[in-house]
Amino acid sequence: MLAKNPDVRISLPVVCFVWQIAMIILFGVFVRYDEESDAHWSEHKREKNITSDIENEFYYRYPSFQDVHVMIFVGFGFLMTFLKRYSFGGVGFNFLIAAFGLQWALLMQGWFHALDPADGQIKIGIENIINADFCVAGCLIAYGALLGKVSPVQLMVLTLFGIPLFAVEEYIILHVLHVRDAGGSMVIHTFGAYYGLTISWILYRPKLDQSKRLNGSGYHSDVFAMIGTLFLWMFWPSFNSAISDHGDGQHRAAINTYLALASSVLTTFAISSLSAKRGKLDMVHIQNATLAGGVAMGTAAEFMITPYGSLIVGFCCGIISTFGYLVITVSRRIQDTCGVHNLHAMPGVLGAVVGAITAATASESVYGHEGLVNTFDFKGKYAERTPATQGGFQAAGLCVALAFGIVGGAIVGFILRLPVWGDPSDDNCFDDEVYWEVPEDEESIPPILEYNSHMVGKYADRM
Amino acid sequence: MLAKNPDVRISLPVVCFVWQIAMIILFGVFVRYDEESDAHWSEHKREKNITSDIENEFYYRYPSFQDVHVMIFVGFGFLMTFLKRYSFGGVGFNFLIAAFGLQWALLMQGWFHALDPADGQIKIGIENIINADFCVAGCLIAYGALLGKVSPVQLMVLTLFGIPLFAVEEYIILHVLHVRDAGGSMVIHTFGAYYGLTISWILYRPKLDQSKRLNGSGYHSDVFAMIGTLFLWMFWPSFNSAISDHGDGQHRAAINTYLALASSVLTTFAISSLSAKRGKLDMVHIQNATLAGGVAMGTAAEFMITPYGSLIVGFCCGIISTFGYLVITVSRRIQDTCGVHNLHAMPGVLGAVVGAITAATASESVYGHEGLVNTFDFKGKYAERTPATQGGFQAAGLCVALAFGIVGGAIVGFILRLPVWGDPSDDNCFDDEVYWEVPEDEESIPPILEYNSHMVGKYADRM
Amino acid sequence: MLAKNPDVRISLPVVCFVWQIAMIILFGVFVRYDEESDAHWSEHKREKNITSDIENEFYYRYPSFQDVHVMIFVGFGFLMTFLKRYSFGGVGFNFLIAAFGLQWALLMQGWFHALDPADGQIKIGIENIINADFCVAGCLIAYGALLGKVSPVQLMVLTLFGIPLFAVEEYIILHVLHVRDAGGSMVIHTFGAYYGLTISWILYRPKLDQSKRLNGSGYHSDVFAMIGTLFLWMFWPSFNSAISDHGDGQHRAAINTYLALASSVLTTFAISSLSAKRGKLDMVHIQNATLAGGVAMGTAAEFMITPYGSLIVGFCCGIISTFGYLVITVSRRIQDTCGVHNLHAMPGVLGAVVGAITAATASESVYGHEGLVNTFDFKGKYAERTPATQGGFQAAGLCVALAFGIVGGAIVGFILRLPVWGDPSDDNCFDDEVYWEVPEDEESIPPILEYNSHMVGKYADRM
Repeated sequence: MLAKNPDVRISLPVVCFVWQIAMIILFGVFVRYDEESDAHWSEHKREKNITSDIENEFYYRYPSFQDVHVMIFVGFGFLMTFLKRYSFGGVGFNFLIAAFGLQWALLMQGWFHALDPADGQIKIGIENIINADFCVAGCLIAYGALLGKVSPVQLMVLTLFGIPLFAVEEYIILHVLHVRDAGGSMVIHTFGAYYGLTISWILYRPKLDQSKRLNGSGYHSDVFAMIGTLFLWMFWPSFNSAISDHGDGQHRAAINTYLALASSVLTTFAISSLSAKRGKLDMVHIQNATLAGGVAMGTAAEFMITPYGSLIVGFCCGIISTFGYLVITVSRRIQDTCGVHNLHAMPGVLGAVVGAITAATASESVYGHEGLVNTFDFKGKYAERTPATQGGFQAAGLCVALAFGIVGGAIVGFILRLPVWGDPSDDNCFDDEVYWEVPEDEESIPPILEYNSHMVGKYADRM
Repeated sequence: MLAKNPDVRISLPVVCFVWQIAMIILFGVFVRYDEESDAHWSEHKREKNITSDIENEFYYRYPSFQDVHVMIFVGFGFLMTFLKRYSFGGVGFNFLIAAFGLQWALLMQGWFHALDPADGQIKIGIENIINADFCVAGCLIAYGALLGKVSPVQLMVLTLFGIPLFAVEEYIILHVLHVRDAGGSMVIHTFGAYYGLTISWILYRPKLDQSKRLNGSGYHSDVFAMIGTLFLWMFWPSFNSAISDHGDGQHRAAINTYLALASSVLTTFAISSLSAKRGKLDMVHIQNATLAGGVAMGTAAEFMITPYGSLIVGFCCGIISTFGYLVITVSRRIQDTCGVHNLHAMPGVLGAVVGAITAATASESVYGHEGLVNTFDFKGKYAERTPATQGGFQAAGLCVALAFGIVGGAIVGFILRLPVWGDPSDDNCFDDEVYWEVPEDEESIPPILEYNSHMVGKYADRM
Repeated sequence: MLAKNPDVRISLPVVCFVWQIAMIILFGVFVRYDEESDAHWSEHKREKNITSDIENEFYYRYPSFQDVHVMIFVGFGFLMTFLKRYSFGGVGFNFLIAAFGLQWALLMQGWFHALDPADGQIKIGIENIINADFCVAGCLIAYGALLGKVSPVQLMVLTLFGIPLFAVEEYIILHVLHVRDAGGSMVIHTFGAYYGLTISWILYRPKLDQSKRLNGSGYHSDVFAMIGTLFLWMFWPSFNSAISDHGDGQHRAAINTYLALASSVLTTFAISSLSAKRGKLDMVHIQNATLAGGVAMGTAAEFMITPYGSLIVGFCCGIISTFGYLVITVSRRIQDTCGVHNLHAMPGVLGAVVGAITAATASESVYGHEGLVNTFDFKGKYAERTPATQGGFQAAGLCVALAFGIVGGAIVGFILRLPVWGDPSDDNCFDDEVYWEVPEDEESIPPILEYNSHMVGKYADRM
């Protein structure tokens, strides 16, 4: 019945074992604690005249880190449980690739951003693990475009290549071009979305209609997905502020994001209702487009965009994103299961543009001299850069993100077309049965107690 | 078949758009960053001899803010998913009105509490957004009384009026009467509950029995509701401590609330079991009455009520609230879907009384001179106020909350009776079908793969 | 039909009331606020020359406390919803015994660790409530072994005895032996697991097969359980760092745990896939074994185990734990519903061994002199202890935990065999119907609206 063979019994364990062992070896060679997480910190503190333990970077960033962590695992994970029979795959494979990706990201980002020239080692602390979670987000966004159509081995390969692509792209944007992108409208969302969309385009399945019966939500799976939506929505202020500047930088980034998101919700409900018979709302829109404001504030969150500026950004993105779900089909060839084009690609690009404009129009009268220097880090070799120039570089950053997403996605897409990865056949997509032991439904339990040996066989060893 | 026409295709989008645009304009005119979230903060810090970024208000309150945010969106939202076929409406409309309400609250509360006399503008920071979430909570409590019986447009109207009512009431209680109410037993719970109950009384549906078949829970919807219950329960210590005084104030408020909540759980289980045949527990009680201790600690949380005092408050509230679910029907005319009378009204009033007594009996021997002045803010023109007087004012605060809830609810209730809001007919309440595109159940998928074009039609544009 | 009588209508309310009243009396006699949560703090602060409110212990630990709190109530609670018809009991009884246990733990741990010699009272603050949550975790782990087979009254008894056993064991391990165990591999996991397994062994039900039809998961209950898994997984870094040393201690504990958990995920997926036909993954493994890395890092989390050391620990534990679910049946007599032997017992013991080795091999060259003294608290009468000796004491600590778990479990097991506790009969286990009012399924609602008075009878008083 199946044209393809989705048996991953050898390939998945091999991939997991080999890559995890590689991580251990590479960590052994390269990764150590940084100054603030090393037991020598008490000496270091004295040398630097730091008077209190509360000055440890941990206390500035740990609460935000945990919020970001929840977004990665529960937010993205549960957002992808909306399909009626792919909830295990949605939350489970998200879990797998994020757990691999964050290790790989610590290495790749470390080589580019955190290498200690004194000993050639990567020194990690709280900021590195936040950045690793960010890096993983790029790959999880890409997964959204492919949900239900690929094997876990393909997802691991997507992550294996996605992380270094992200790290290089991020290095060029943030360090070479000296672009600001605190919440990653470009670096995370634009890159991740185009990476996934390009792969989806290359993995085009002309006969995907054969799985149409499962490519939809169920009542309870829609409620599960709302868990993902809400944790993403609520914690997005932490996402955009997690690595911005201490003090007013983090403070402002949180407030701006909070406002943009609120605004997105109203325009999403408006367009969703306007578009349907009798004004009925569509869960697809509510689960996704309400988040567009957070994506679009990724670049400008720490800027003085003003509270009403944030509202305007959210207003526009809620509209654009919902319209995306309603009408846009960029190409029939891109079978974008979660609609990442509408949630991440368009708002990400918009966010980059908003960021470029906001940067270009920044002034000392608004920021103060010190505030302008701090916010845009016009220090050292960038001391002479003007806001206008910065705006130009911000726009250049967007092009880099797009290029890495599309070119990287094309290369990885062709790799994933090789017939060795155990992906499901066209009539077997969106179905947990392919890669999971699925219990029979509780609904099928007869109310009169009756012995059913088959159903519980797999749990026998639990007792 | 339907006597009423619940079509909101025009009204809902118009309301969302117009009000969101109004928010943008009003924010443009009135709202700016406060000192600690503005880019001038580094200058400000130097002027005030603040030595460390960690002194930014953000670090004192942001973790509590995020907990409160989770309570508003996941806590209240999922608590209202308990109905078997109204989970979309429970969590979805909660999302909509909270997102609108928090913007509107920033303005209304800002005009009353945060107006900068120098330039006539509202300066917002972390404390304002916590207060906006609090303000929204009042309207969400009111929604609980109306769950399943009103249209989203009516909920928006309820919020439009509820927020200013709250802001004025709060201003009178906290600023004119100089009452302490850190966690809002009066300001939030009493007001919100009576506001909702009065509206429900006015919107009385004599034939609501026609929707009886849907006015109950399902097995899975009860488990979803437990997500709401638990996030409310766990984060209530953050709710009651979020805006209390730095240092021992926040610390004590968290501990007192933690204890009162634990105590509520035991008496709730006790009464629930005692009241049923064979001692069977009722999920309605577990989902709601376990939270009563948190409501009742809202006023006294930051006081020196002592750990055992907190346990006693929780003990009583668990009993009272569960009894409420079992026996009290204040009036057949009040069709209180979620039982907000039992969860918010009674414990809120009790909390106000507990607060008044605790305040009246406060003494320098218990608080220390400095502690007493700080806790009750006996400074400036209140420097001469005694604890006994404070107790009297606390009691007066309760009356203000009740008056605003009941009178405000009456006015808004009559507005909501106008036949233009698209509310459901009596035989169509508690049903997501009215305002949502509801997917067919996953259970109806035949295990033998069969083409079903109808079911997935609405998702076609995703591919 | 039932051999036993699971009616708890008298016993459960009596237990809840009497014990809660006892708590109130004991708190009244013994429990007061500590220096940092008392209103005298502002004076205390001045005396000690503390310059800022941010130095209050609250700000060092409150975010971690809330994460731990989520693990206890949502993490453990939802992890136990996996059974198809015991979700109410899983999350509900977890709620009950945790709420009782944390009060009892504040007293028991207080008498051993926090008694103020000046006035014979227990002074509580944020660290005490974190420790109370930890203490409760021991009993919740034990519950996991008994899930579905005991009555709520038995669980209350299990907790009544479990908390003092924990407190004494903890006192011996941490204070008498001066062992380090920040995240409780020994104190919490080893003790809790063997306590529960021994009780389960004594409560052996030879005819448990009669409930086999319900001893398995359902599709949605498996997704609910993933909520528990993920919140445990994400917040485990907070669990292991919540009470470790300020500054680098907390920082390092969080990073080590983060890495170990990531590594566990990959080996869990690998073994799960390797063991099944066509490589299909089993949700039982993903829900549980992915957490083993966190358990095993409980002792060594704050040590300089190095990032790759953490990865190795997680690597091994993912394998061992998954194998446990696949093949190990320690004894047919131990009917371990949740597999706590695989998730807590084995990784806990391994964690203790890892901790002992890491401690024994600690050196000044790695930690610095000051770092070594701080990390192992080689101060006062322990100033002369060497790392090697410390390693020996760590191993001794493991023996204490095992002894308390097994002996305590045996005693409590025999108490729980008394025929007075209302436990379910063998053919009635794993069934919420026994102790809960269970709503009929929403699926049974006829799509054509039809009056169904029976179903909603219990909700009538809500209106």
